Amino acid sequence: MAVVTLFMSDRDESRTFTSKKEADAYDKMLELAEGISHFVGREIDGLSERQAEDIGILFARHAEVLAAAMKGKTDVLFEPLAQQEDSSEDKKAESSSHLSAVGE
Amino acid sequence: MAVVTLFMSDRDESRTFTSKKEADAYDKMLELAEGISHFVGREIDGLSERQAEDIGILFARHAEVLAAAMKGKTDVLFEPLAQQEDSSEDKKAESSSHLSAVGE
Repeated sequence: MAVVTLFMSDRDESRTFTSKKEADAYDKMLELAEGISHFVGREIDGLSERQAEDIGILFARHAEVLAAAMKGKTDVLFEPLAQQEDSSEDKKAESSSHLSAVGE
Repeated sequence: MAVVTLFMSDRDESRTFTSKKEADAYDKMLELAEGISHFVGREIDGLSERQAEDIGILFARHAEVLAAAMKGKTDVLFEPLAQQEDSSEDKKAESSSHLSAVGE
């Protein structure tokens, strides 16, 4: 039998990657999600923790949409999101991911 | 008496500017806020229209914080917001501004 090297973000132990690069990108995305969740939870009244978390994941997962809108292409915010990223595997990760709200 | 030229964004008729540049920047910020409000309202369950609007304004007003975080400096999201932008005048504009949700 052969030993395989796996990589995992400690922010979401439900997913492993065989590529370190992918694991790094996923960890960075979760780090951004956590920060945005904290930011929006702190600044907007009445948001549930779950809503703040979902907003963080939404903006972190679609950061390229936000970046384009911030450069003036606001129409991208009215277009349906590219579904290819939200494959069933992501859905599984999303439902089981336990984002620990840093610093709360 | 002299006639003064004023500039106003049709997205917020409660504010006028003597500088076209400032009016343009304000209009762009409101356009981004409107887009983000639509985007987050569409994608996140259970948000009130007011919460979606507040999130849009928050992200559009502090776009530079988001941009830095998206480039990897996520710690900016945990720092208190620079208050100098939220002067009392902005607060007045914020409370009276009627962002029409485009396309709903």
